[in-house]
Amino acid sequence: MRTFTYTQRVYFSDTDAQGIVYHAAYLDFAEHARTELARELGTSGLDGDRALVVRSINISYEKPAVLDDLLTVYTTVRDLGRVSMTFEQIIRRGEETVATLLVKVASIDIRTKRPLRIDEELVKALQ
Amino acid sequence: MRTFTYTQRVYFSDTDAQGIVYHAAYLDFAEHARTELARELGTSGLDGDRALVVRSINISYEKPAVLDDLLTVYTTVRDLGRVSMTFEQIIRRGEETVATLLVKVASIDIRTKRPLRIDEELVKALQ
Amino acid sequence: MRTFTYTQRVYFSDTDAQGIVYHAAYLDFAEHARTELARELGTSGLDGDRALVVRSINISYEKPAVLDDLLTVYTTVRDLGRVSMTFEQIIRRGEETVATLLVKVASIDIRTKRPLRIDEELVKALQ
Amino acid sequence: MRTFTYTQRVYFSDTDAQGIVYHAAYLDFAEHARTELARELGTSGLDGDRALVVRSINISYEKPAVLDDLLTVYTTVRDLGRVSMTFEQIIRRGEETVATLLVKVASIDIRTKRPLRIDEELVKALQ
Repeated sequence: MRTFTYTQRVYFSDTDAQGIVYHAAYLDFAEHARTELARELGTSGLDGDRALVVRSINISYEKPAVLDDLLTVYTTVRDLGRVSMTFEQIIRRGEETVATLLVKVASIDIRTKRPLRIDEELVKALQ
Repeated sequence: MRTFTYTQRVYFSDTDAQGIVYHAAYLDFAEHARTELARELGTSGLDGDRALVVRSINISYEKPAVLDDLLTVYTTVRDLGRVSMTFEQIIRRGEETVATLLVKVASIDIRTKRPLRIDEELVKALQ
Repeated sequence: MRTFTYTQRVYFSDTDAQGIVYHAAYLDFAEHARTELARELGTSGLDGDRALVVRSINISYEKPAVLDDLLTVYTTVRDLGRVSMTFEQIIRRGEETVATLLVKVASIDIRTKRPLRIDEELVKALQ
Repeated sequence: MRTFTYTQRVYFSDTDAQGIVYHAAYLDFAEHARTELARELGTSGLDGDRALVVRSINISYEKPAVLDDLLTVYTTVRDLGRVSMTFEQIIRRGEETVATLLVKVASIDIRTKRPLRIDEELVKALQ
């Protein structure tokens, strides 16, 4: 599957008193990238029936990013199941890897909160 | 009207790369204090029909707070109208004033988004 | 003085359980816009001696922004003093005004924290 | 090793437009709990030479928390190495598990950013 890229500038709102990007802010950056991926595909996989929820995240911090950095988030779907999918997301500053994430997202029924098959249109767009 | 107090510890998540509390984080602290005020009163003024929304905030930054500070937010209702009310909120570290806010909140109808009289129970509890 | 524009997409990280943009997130958006204004000018007014700190903000909330909105922040310097300046910032979704801010920023000496004349290069760039 | 508990209330600032706690906010909650653990021990393991930085986080989301929930974060040191340690953190609402985290933190030299033996006082306090 192809890799999508998203560019994220680092602002004061993303940093902490250690002078670097606050460790939870990378989850925001990754979420922005997944949202833009859906926008690029033309379908979010959401409709009146479905929501996509994050089930688990493994994040490894390699190098700290700092204020004013221009980061790129590379997002690839690594596993596309019937009711869940896993994204690999690599955050880089130029050639340097800042952080890597594995993000498992599940499709659920909005009312019952139970697993619901991923939207067909999204599956097709991802393949 | 009486003044309510709320205690807020400063964590890394509240700070920025200037080494101080990020300026927007004080709005979170003030919001936490207003929520606890409602909890203490035993009524949030919210029900199936109403929402409370922030209409305006004037905030003045006096002294920077830093990591690990233990702040106290003093909240007083300064103006209690039919469809809106204004809170004065003073954030202190010990005797020292860190920031002061005037926060105007309006009561609206959840569906129409139009002004709706503030919940009677909340008005009584505040008086 | 001219008006600078900055585009801000609304993501989940900016929203709250009312289903709209969390009221403190607009301060982030305005900060991003001021930072990009400085980048466009080619000078942040920061150097080894100086920091710029927010002294006060007046924000008025006109219409709620929601997830996926594409907002534009219009920033104009309204008052340029010797040690402080005031920005007017208007956040719009298309023609519709979402929020307006007046943000007073002061230039201080990094070590003494006392007022220090705004960087000359920044003053020239702004005029 | 013993388990430390930290209580976290959920406020609007922690939620998102899905009506639940924003997935990155749990990392804030876990960070608050680790900071209070250090405060309880009487030593943060930080001094003029050392910083503690997050190296990796595995988080599993079990049940969504919502506005006004009162959560408890249970923190246990699972692995105490020479230059790093791993915390297991379980976030519960009453008996129900909301999220579980494994957080690996490394001790580094503030100037060189290279690994530096964890502060002895902290090691003793943890054992």
